[in-house]
Amino acid sequence: MQFNRFKSYQKLIKLREKPIDLSKNGVLTPSRIEKMQIESLGLKLLYGTERVTEDIMEALFDLAEESGAQDSMESMQAGEIINGIEGFESENRAVLHTAMRDFFSDRNPSKAALMASDKAFKEFNKLDQLMEQVDKKKITDIIQIGIGGSDLGPRALYVALERYHKPGRRAHFISNVDPDDATSVLNSVDLSKSIIVVVSKSGTTLETLTNESFVRDRLEKMGLDPKDHMIAVTGEGSPMDDPAKYLASFYIWDYVGGRYSATSMVGGVMLAFTIGMEEYKEILAGASEMDKHALSSDMHENLPLVSALLGIWNRNFLDLPTLAIIPYSQALLRFPAHLQQCDMESNGKQIDKKGAVVKYETGPIIWGEPGTNGQHSFYQLIHQGTTKVPLEFIGFRDSQYGNDLIVEGTSSQEKLLSNLFAQSIALAAGKKDKNPNKNFPGNRPNRILLAKHLDPRTMGKILSYYENKVAFQGFIWGINSFDQEGVQLGKVLAKKVLGLFGDKKESYPLGEAYVRALDSL
Amino acid sequence: MQFNRFKSYQKLIKLREKPIDLSKNGVLTPSRIEKMQIESLGLKLLYGTERVTEDIMEALFDLAEESGAQDSMESMQAGEIINGIEGFESENRAVLHTAMRDFFSDRNPSKAALMASDKAFKEFNKLDQLMEQVDKKKITDIIQIGIGGSDLGPRALYVALERYHKPGRRAHFISNVDPDDATSVLNSVDLSKSIIVVVSKSGTTLETLTNESFVRDRLEKMGLDPKDHMIAVTGEGSPMDDPAKYLASFYIWDYVGGRYSATSMVGGVMLAFTIGMEEYKEILAGASEMDKHALSSDMHENLPLVSALLGIWNRNFLDLPTLAIIPYSQALLRFPAHLQQCDMESNGKQIDKKGAVVKYETGPIIWGEPGTNGQHSFYQLIHQGTTKVPLEFIGFRDSQYGNDLIVEGTSSQEKLLSNLFAQSIALAAGKKDKNPNKNFPGNRPNRILLAKHLDPRTMGKILSYYENKVAFQGFIWGINSFDQEGVQLGKVLAKKVLGLFGDKKESYPLGEAYVRALDSL
Repeated sequence: MQFNRFKSYQKLIKLREKPIDLSKNGVLTPSRIEKMQIESLGLKLLYGTERVTEDIMEALFDLAEESGAQDSMESMQAGEIINGIEGFESENRAVLHTAMRDFFSDRNPSKAALMASDKAFKEFNKLDQLMEQVDKKKITDIIQIGIGGSDLGPRALYVALERYHKPGRRAHFISNVDPDDATSVLNSVDLSKSIIVVVSKSGTTLETLTNESFVRDRLEKMGLDPKDHMIAVTGEGSPMDDPAKYLASFYIWDYVGGRYSATSMVGGVMLAFTIGMEEYKEILAGASEMDKHALSSDMHENLPLVSALLGIWNRNFLDLPTLAIIPYSQALLRFPAHLQQCDMESNGKQIDKKGAVVKYETGPIIWGEPGTNGQHSFYQLIHQGTTKVPLEFIGFRDSQYGNDLIVEGTSSQEKLLSNLFAQSIALAAGKKDKNPNKNFPGNRPNRILLAKHLDPRTMGKILSYYENKVAFQGFIWGINSFDQEGVQLGKVLAKKVLGLFGDKKESYPLGEAYVRALDSL
Repeated sequence: MQFNRFKSYQKLIKLREKPIDLSKNGVLTPSRIEKMQIESLGLKLLYGTERVTEDIMEALFDLAEESGAQDSMESMQAGEIINGIEGFESENRAVLHTAMRDFFSDRNPSKAALMASDKAFKEFNKLDQLMEQVDKKKITDIIQIGIGGSDLGPRALYVALERYHKPGRRAHFISNVDPDDATSVLNSVDLSKSIIVVVSKSGTTLETLTNESFVRDRLEKMGLDPKDHMIAVTGEGSPMDDPAKYLASFYIWDYVGGRYSATSMVGGVMLAFTIGMEEYKEILAGASEMDKHALSSDMHENLPLVSALLGIWNRNFLDLPTLAIIPYSQALLRFPAHLQQCDMESNGKQIDKKGAVVKYETGPIIWGEPGTNGQHSFYQLIHQGTTKVPLEFIGFRDSQYGNDLIVEGTSSQEKLLSNLFAQSIALAAGKKDKNPNKNFPGNRPNRILLAKHLDPRTMGKILSYYENKVAFQGFIWGINSFDQEGVQLGKVLAKKVLGLFGDKKESYPLGEAYVRALDSL
């Protein structure tokens, strides 16, 4: 059944007619904040500042039930073929990124999941051996060549876990086909002391192959043998699956989508090199714990499910088109860019799983920068602009380094947290003022995900929390969150335009108009 | 008169009833693309892929005229008091960032602008002298401590112009009150070879003062004298205006808003150190050229004004709540984050210049990441999602380094440009397909800003293009783009919450509820 046909949908449509106003006296109270929180695995979700009531929450849980969201999660983690559109040509694959990280805990007993987990564990052990070899050499730098999921997730984790980097080890990333990207990275490393991981599941990604050629060319010009430096992460049997060309090769599979692949070998090689195998294992353990929590916890305590439902309330019933994700942690600087892909590529869809055009909104626009920085940037619009922006904050009790300074009686970490809490309150409660320019309408929904400390295990949990939130929303909307047909047309047309630059002057009148504009500059 | 009372507004409301559909056969043609472009100062704006007709453009120009947008630009650059709300307590200041960069060309003849320009030139000369001193010492690193406009714009320019960095010179930025931000930077530099620029106009910014203390503390622990390393950029007479504490001090003034201050000493000290005075001058010259173009070019050729009008069409008449700015240039990685502040903090307003609540939308949500990277991330939603996203692309004919590799007959730069053009076409034209999952509805508006090459002068032009676009939109909407009252409430409440952490246990029940959640983690 379609999302907008559920009984609970109709109920929610009615409930939104009498919306709660958080800015009214006596609505936002300490006891509301106390009551509206759930906690699992050391993560707390505070949602007293969302525009929901108990009735609304109940109807949202009905929606989860009617849509079979938790059953779909079971199907996903058991490796059923859920990546497809009924009756139309589509990918028709399982979705098993959860099997990339469950081999140190209770594994999913289904045959497909066990098989995927076994294969992933084999790669993990190969990586362990490679790292033993690498440790004996004097390698200082690793360069990851990849784009999209082969770049954003791994890069976000690398930046987030700088605190855990092994001394003297750095990573660099080349993603863009823009030649300045590769040039800039190559200017800053000594290739003779570097290993290079080339990541492309299909082994045919234009940007990645171009940048691989770029780096191979440089290695050869330096008199170095690329085979001593280059590592492949690719699909079995892909054009890149050629042991003759690489120092080592690692596999990924078609049941691991790029945007869900950070914990697989896609992120694994670079992470194992920079933070070590033990800390990489911690990421896997944390992510797997959260996967199991998403799978089997009580609906009312299920962190990613509750976040998904709150998001659906904001998106489909309060008509808010975007979601800002604001970590109060500089280490999570690039995490919103990863979530932008994970969420928007998964749920930016216009048809349901039967191929019918949806009559309701699906995935929102995801954006964000760390706080407190954002406070000095776009918060003006969030507080007083004409478009309302729901927010999900992320905060940590302790700083990563524990290296803090008391200024005027409080630490920087306390100042950071005070700002986080104050923003949550200010956005919800607002403040009346006779000067219209100092008037804050408030009633702007937000929630906070709180944890103790951003270590590798917590990072794994948070990563999986968002992956599973996105999956739950897709299940409830009845869309396929695991393909990305929307990226194809651009690729096809780019080839046509490229034909106008190369030797063979193909004809493509629209492209020619652009190329002429360029030439006449 | 209010924006929605203009005759042209009513005309535009009518025109949107028969909107142009770019995905229809024969609408998007090469001649449309050829015709709908304007060029000045080596920058070309291509807008054939916007959903406009000649009638709509005409009505938009009427809107510019009726709203007196160009007169307001004249008032701004002449230093009239335009930063205010009539009849209410407000900042009541001039807005003269354009005077921070006009002293090598024809200066604005108004008294206020000349005075501001003279003062800025004095600072420029002081900077020149400081750089001569610095060149004699063995300084390798500069650390900029600042947040918001004292961070985002300068950082975006620094990253954009890496190609022009003087050998062996690097910059670092500490912005967030998160103690991990400062720790991470201090772990990566040798303070004995560093200078530190502390930037705060008010001299009271919480984050900046906290981080200054952090770095002073570290310098002292290393046995270094902060006065040999620290430079202040602040307002005359601010608490930071204390020559006894700094190696050098530079001034900014209340008529330069933080988000418009990148070309002033706020960005100047760091830029002069990293790219040299000559290249810094180039940025100023480029920005000033664009300021004059915004001021005095024919309305139909005015690049920032045309961009502003297209934005207003998308925002107020096509009801699109966001704008994605996508540079096809890795060097512009952090430029969208700067524009996020510049635009959203300026135009995220709910009242007009007379204090009346507006009945129309103002500034959109600005977001973006470089292409081609975005293609492998959020473009799925842009092509096939339920929310339409207008885009402004930025592209360059040549790469910065000119270090390129031919793979399969074309260079990386050609591949980059082919992708840019292909996306512009694909979004507008779409593609019908019987498989609903491969169907592209198209008709998604976008425009392209094209230039030859991203050098310092062009960077200055592009920076000013956006600053002036934002100002034009504010003028047309009749709002004050130059204050930021919306950031105050959060600051006030943060102090209250902070009181719960410090020695004096103040009472603030809402804050306490959050602190308890934290403590029980």
